[in-house]
Amino acid sequence: MIVVMEERATEAQIDAVIARLIELGMDVHRSSGATRTVLGVVGTGKIEKEMIEILDGVHEVLRISEPYKRASRSYHPEDTVVTIDDLRIGGDEVIVMAGPCSVESEKQILEAAHAVRDAGAVILRGGAFKPRTSPYSFQGLGKKGLQLLARAREETGLLIVTEAIDSEGVDLVAEVADIIQIGARNMQNYSLLKAAGRAKKPVLLKRGLAATITELLLSAEYLFAEGNRQVILCERGIRGFDPATRNVFDLTAIPVVHKLSHLPIVADPSHGTGLRDKVTPMARAAIAAGADGLLIEVHPHPERALSDGAQSLNPEQFSELMNQCRAIAEVIGRHVAAPAEV
Amino acid sequence: MIVVMEERATEAQIDAVIARLIELGMDVHRSSGATRTVLGVVGTGKIEKEMIEILDGVHEVLRISEPYKRASRSYHPEDTVVTIDDLRIGGDEVIVMAGPCSVESEKQILEAAHAVRDAGAVILRGGAFKPRTSPYSFQGLGKKGLQLLARAREETGLLIVTEAIDSEGVDLVAEVADIIQIGARNMQNYSLLKAAGRAKKPVLLKRGLAATITELLLSAEYLFAEGNRQVILCERGIRGFDPATRNVFDLTAIPVVHKLSHLPIVADPSHGTGLRDKVTPMARAAIAAGADGLLIEVHPHPERALSDGAQSLNPEQFSELMNQCRAIAEVIGRHVAAPAEV
Amino acid sequence: MIVVMEERATEAQIDAVIARLIELGMDVHRSSGATRTVLGVVGTGKIEKEMIEILDGVHEVLRISEPYKRASRSYHPEDTVVTIDDLRIGGDEVIVMAGPCSVESEKQILEAAHAVRDAGAVILRGGAFKPRTSPYSFQGLGKKGLQLLARAREETGLLIVTEAIDSEGVDLVAEVADIIQIGARNMQNYSLLKAAGRAKKPVLLKRGLAATITELLLSAEYLFAEGNRQVILCERGIRGFDPATRNVFDLTAIPVVHKLSHLPIVADPSHGTGLRDKVTPMARAAIAAGADGLLIEVHPHPERALSDGAQSLNPEQFSELMNQCRAIAEVIGRHVAAPAEV
Amino acid sequence: MIVVMEERATEAQIDAVIARLIELGMDVHRSSGATRTVLGVVGTGKIEKEMIEILDGVHEVLRISEPYKRASRSYHPEDTVVTIDDLRIGGDEVIVMAGPCSVESEKQILEAAHAVRDAGAVILRGGAFKPRTSPYSFQGLGKKGLQLLARAREETGLLIVTEAIDSEGVDLVAEVADIIQIGARNMQNYSLLKAAGRAKKPVLLKRGLAATITELLLSAEYLFAEGNRQVILCERGIRGFDPATRNVFDLTAIPVVHKLSHLPIVADPSHGTGLRDKVTPMARAAIAAGADGLLIEVHPHPERALSDGAQSLNPEQFSELMNQCRAIAEVIGRHVAAPAEV
Repeated sequence: MIVVMEERATEAQIDAVIARLIELGMDVHRSSGATRTVLGVVGTGKIEKEMIEILDGVHEVLRISEPYKRASRSYHPEDTVVTIDDLRIGGDEVIVMAGPCSVESEKQILEAAHAVRDAGAVILRGGAFKPRTSPYSFQGLGKKGLQLLARAREETGLLIVTEAIDSEGVDLVAEVADIIQIGARNMQNYSLLKAAGRAKKPVLLKRGLAATITELLLSAEYLFAEGNRQVILCERGIRGFDPATRNVFDLTAIPVVHKLSHLPIVADPSHGTGLRDKVTPMARAAIAAGADGLLIEVHPHPERALSDGAQSLNPEQFSELMNQCRAIAEVIGRHVAAPAEV
Repeated sequence: MIVVMEERATEAQIDAVIARLIELGMDVHRSSGATRTVLGVVGTGKIEKEMIEILDGVHEVLRISEPYKRASRSYHPEDTVVTIDDLRIGGDEVIVMAGPCSVESEKQILEAAHAVRDAGAVILRGGAFKPRTSPYSFQGLGKKGLQLLARAREETGLLIVTEAIDSEGVDLVAEVADIIQIGARNMQNYSLLKAAGRAKKPVLLKRGLAATITELLLSAEYLFAEGNRQVILCERGIRGFDPATRNVFDLTAIPVVHKLSHLPIVADPSHGTGLRDKVTPMARAAIAAGADGLLIEVHPHPERALSDGAQSLNPEQFSELMNQCRAIAEVIGRHVAAPAEV
Repeated sequence: MIVVMEERATEAQIDAVIARLIELGMDVHRSSGATRTVLGVVGTGKIEKEMIEILDGVHEVLRISEPYKRASRSYHPEDTVVTIDDLRIGGDEVIVMAGPCSVESEKQILEAAHAVRDAGAVILRGGAFKPRTSPYSFQGLGKKGLQLLARAREETGLLIVTEAIDSEGVDLVAEVADIIQIGARNMQNYSLLKAAGRAKKPVLLKRGLAATITELLLSAEYLFAEGNRQVILCERGIRGFDPATRNVFDLTAIPVVHKLSHLPIVADPSHGTGLRDKVTPMARAAIAAGADGLLIEVHPHPERALSDGAQSLNPEQFSELMNQCRAIAEVIGRHVAAPAEV
Repeated sequence: MIVVMEERATEAQIDAVIARLIELGMDVHRSSGATRTVLGVVGTGKIEKEMIEILDGVHEVLRISEPYKRASRSYHPEDTVVTIDDLRIGGDEVIVMAGPCSVESEKQILEAAHAVRDAGAVILRGGAFKPRTSPYSFQGLGKKGLQLLARAREETGLLIVTEAIDSEGVDLVAEVADIIQIGARNMQNYSLLKAAGRAKKPVLLKRGLAATITELLLSAEYLFAEGNRQVILCERGIRGFDPATRNVFDLTAIPVVHKLSHLPIVADPSHGTGLRDKVTPMARAAIAAGADGLLIEVHPHPERALSDGAQSLNPEQFSELMNQCRAIAEVIGRHVAAPAEV
């Protein structure tokens, strides 16, 4: 931590700041220039930026290390590879998760599961519990939806990723799902993160609409703090000013996360753009940017979907997307994971 | 709802859209101009914008009514006044809630309670359960904090507002608090909103960092949908691009909410700016813009606070703020509510 | 400047960075902790952050002084008061500038000028050269508009503020106007800033839609660099994500500027909100936040305006706004300047 | 245009709105539902949204056609291909423009030109006139820089793109450059756009930091309005809230522009990310998203650059980037244009 004093700070103010830092268990190196004094602060004391910012004569406090620890690449230099059965997320393979926004019926989810498997997806996505902006929108089938997902796994061999929206739901979801999804709206729902951290399943953590990468990694840190190290991050669009798209799909987050953290990161162009005809080019772009996987909404009949139909691909579109993504993955020395024989 | 067809839409496409709308229970009025066909859609069918956007030949679907209902001023033209004992929030009076970010100790919360009461606040704020960006930051005293708040109420007669961060916590908070706070990070935590909607206490709902006013009102709608109509909204700053302040304090939200909704709205300049020396001018500005109340962080010794010290006022600064706000309230025909005699 | 080295930086890398800094004319203080080395850099060399960021082993470069100089309060601690005849902008008085978006005709501008003067404005605003998003929108009357503004000044004694949109226009505007306005879209049009810096008239510099306060002050620095110190800043709304208002009116910018700079800052709630019924509450809020003046769109017949009618007040609304603003200015120890007798 | 009346609008208000629309030369179709009246408005009258929004009883005015005309794909369904000598921008080929941020010396620009040509670029970029946030930063070599660019073209056969920052500069730049660049800060500098529109050279128009796609196309419309149809758009990052990157690189703008307009669009990952190690992955992503070209900062010695060194590639890095981009272009059925034999 660097404490920059005001130009006009008095000796008494500087001394008071140093005394407070020492009281908090830190070591202080003072360096006084022609116009300002700057304090270099190191140590293991429990200290927050704002505790010092408030002191008289302090101009600014600058962090020099990341506020997250176990999610940081400095702490764990090798890539984390989340392994589920034979599938490895975060290594050379690119993992595609696909399926409808919501589980709507047995017929729909089985049809979707077969379609995405035929095109080459290895994980089935589908919401049983849906966080919806309006209380009047379809809220998902709940437990019944989880049962249908389990049924789809039996039939197709696909792994399942589905969302938990509260701590009670985590247990229900963990019984069925192979990966527990934490949605963007809940990225800073810390009770939910703690519950997911205690579950024995990998977690897919989506970036919040207004979250910085630092905040995303701090939310991952909540999972680590509870003992869960199987974390997959997901870029799914941030809030922007242009109504031309639903969100701003921030693909630069992918190389940024890869530099700061050892965790894998996948991309969700369906939510990231909100527009069906933008999903394929942006899925290609995500792979080219280095994403460890994709999360794609596919519905057997998008025009009949109960939610998010406007951003869902039909099976033919998805199959074409897979072909293009396979070729791009090869260009950068990776390959798209293929479903196992059933 | 208005459905704007593409310029090149065929008759068959137009007919298919009309058929789908009728199937969904809507009435359709067709109007064809030189270049485009536009469909006016009315009725009580359960329909979402995206169900139609996806159909072939559709250029755009435009809503003509708000997606929220019971929170809307069209639905309930008179101002909602939330009444707790003798206090009325949303009428002529301006209500000031003040206190520390977190309850830290009996001494601290009692000292703070007396100080804010002496300066004229009528509600004591203070967090027992704290949602913190980092798992390594102070997380609040929990139940012990609630007991200390109850103790402060006994001594000072102040009402209590404090945050619940999960559905289990709602019951604990509701036992002690006069107002249950839902924080900005949880504005779209729907399980929490449903629990708070079932509690028999007023709810202070803070706007999320990236929430539109429409989304804020839709979250209020979750409370209404569970039967709780005692809702107070709160503007506390939105995410912006300028590091000069922690957030962008969007005071225009106050007259915007007053036009669209019947609910009262208060302002939190402490979080809205994140900077102690900006709290007083922006509190004055909030009153001048028509806020129904203020939420102010006051700590007996800000430089010793365990959280948010950098944005907390000391009691003298708060007392001066109250004097200025009283005078501004008078200019616009309101007055700041005074604490009752104990 | 603080140079934070990477945790794994080698001695050779650290030495190379120090050598480069010395080559650039700086003094370097090295401080090595358990995990990192940090370099404190002072001196008068011509150096930019990015020149050092690119060197091997550098983690981050942090500025500790503002990049602007003459606009900074450290450089010039006393408030700048821009004086035009008897009017003082930036002192105790609050200055109101009002008038139509565009000069449309002699009748319109004279009617507007009399109306705003009667209500108490001291400066007449009105565009002769209009920067419009679409080339098909009304672009202003040009030189003819300037003549009409001069005529309005003769009749009413009001001072004139009007916009220049290119360097050639600066000379034309400077002949007639008392204050040259630089619009938000041109805040980083450096050729225009240089021309305005050479003019012998005060400049009203509006904050760009996506400009930080630092960038606003750097644009002011361009005016200073050409010798013009009569600069008035203006907050007029920044780009946001909520379509409920045209812009986000960032009133916290007022106390932020007052702390960082000695320059006066006025507020424009007409553009800041874009909505007529929000102008009055937000004008009050601006005064309460400490604005040194207001810029308000007033049109004798807003429903007939050729531009920005939806955000223009009519004379009665403006007169009521003036009454409220006068009372709020008194609360904070200021008063609204009154027009001189003609 | 659709005019949505308020629920409580009176018959007199509705009649007044209809009368005003007819007066403005429009045809009106009235459609009254149970709760609201909606007016469909068509015709060729000169009318702006805000002229109607201000009328009593109007709830909202919705556009149903784009405000731009000649830049729209509805107006011109075929792709525009900008042709310079043998080079075609906007067709199957992907065009790479590369070079240093600024022209610094003869040695530097020639070395850069040879290096980028050797790696396969076909256009040399380099600024002679630099718009810099601070007046104290290096402002470019001016005319001398243009001469050096001309010299580099002679030697290498590369075409030249360089920026003009004011209307006088357009003539100077047009004498030398093959493409005139309008920078992001000047996207709404209408005097500059008009001058560039009158020049007989193609224009590269960069998206402003806070510009919507609609506003970008409206700025292109200024060029069209002056008779210049050789317009190339450029995505170069928009302002965001996360300090992890300099800008948010909005690659979805590429398929959005391709749908709404017939104009080619290239991407600038150097400014889009601001970070050297992010340029290569995001250049690949841009090609995968369908960009018609790239604009890349390459400096023979980035650590010695006078501006933007931190985001410049060295020649080896650029050469590797070209290899990857060639392969990705092939995947989507395009190919990267190669320099002609000299």
